[in-house]
Amino acid sequence: MFVGAVRDDSRRPADPHGTTGLPLPAGGGGEWTTVTQQQLDPAIAARLRHDDAGLFPTVVQEYGTGVVLMVAWMDDEALRRTLTTGRATYWSRSRRQYWVKGETSGHHQYVRRAALDCDGDTLLLTVEQVGPACHTGTHSCFTDILQETQR
Amino acid sequence: MFVGAVRDDSRRPADPHGTTGLPLPAGGGGEWTTVTQQQLDPAIAARLRHDDAGLFPTVVQEYGTGVVLMVAWMDDEALRRTLTTGRATYWSRSRRQYWVKGETSGHHQYVRRAALDCDGDTLLLTVEQVGPACHTGTHSCFTDILQETQR
Repeated sequence: MFVGAVRDDSRRPADPHGTTGLPLPAGGGGEWTTVTQQQLDPAIAARLRHDDAGLFPTVVQEYGTGVVLMVAWMDDEALRRTLTTGRATYWSRSRRQYWVKGETSGHHQYVRRAALDCDGDTLLLTVEQVGPACHTGTHSCFTDILQETQR
Repeated sequence: MFVGAVRDDSRRPADPHGTTGLPLPAGGGGEWTTVTQQQLDPAIAARLRHDDAGLFPTVVQEYGTGVVLMVAWMDDEALRRTLTTGRATYWSRSRRQYWVKGETSGHHQYVRRAALDCDGDTLLLTVEQVGPACHTGTHSCFTDILQETQR
């Protein structure tokens, strides 16, 4: 667990280009506050590789069935929230804000496992999915079959 | 099947920012040549949404086991090659060239199914994987477990 003096992100607008996940100056006062686990574990942050927007894609797979449900995007803060709350939390590129999956729909994703790939630029979440994962009402988002080969 | 006058991409350097997948002027001569199926099926191309670099992420899942093996990137031409050859072909962002998975390692991916997600910006390939999918020698690239929850 990280304990230290970090910028309190809960008080400023969500910003994936911000300082989240970067080393921050010690000391309190002003906009700085001493908090517990308000920054992604530096050991994890150091293994992550982000795109130019500070994001990385996250593949979401259903626990038990292995069905690939969807792909969404995270920044360090979304991953921190996901790991600490156990509920999948993403960064919406279109709305430019964090969203807890199921917050409005009730179709939550309870995280069972989180794993990075070999070069640290993609996350795989294994989740228990409540209801359909897709906003269209289907279980998985991958319903538009382009090609299928039978042996 | 698309038949028409298109730019012959096989004769110019790979370029995901190029005209691949876009409507092209009719007529021959010069750098234009009449070919068969040298362009991604326009009905598929119209459903794809690309990032600023003309790319979209592709999740690769193993047929039969459901294991998520890796994530790679494609442009329209990589998808065209994948669908027409049946072998997973990606765009390498670091090397800036197409790569047929297994071309050097022998660890080919034979495509059984290709599906787009609900907003057309992510592809899911279901493949028969020959050997390990990861260049590190592991079956899947997702071996760096950040967190795992037991009930």
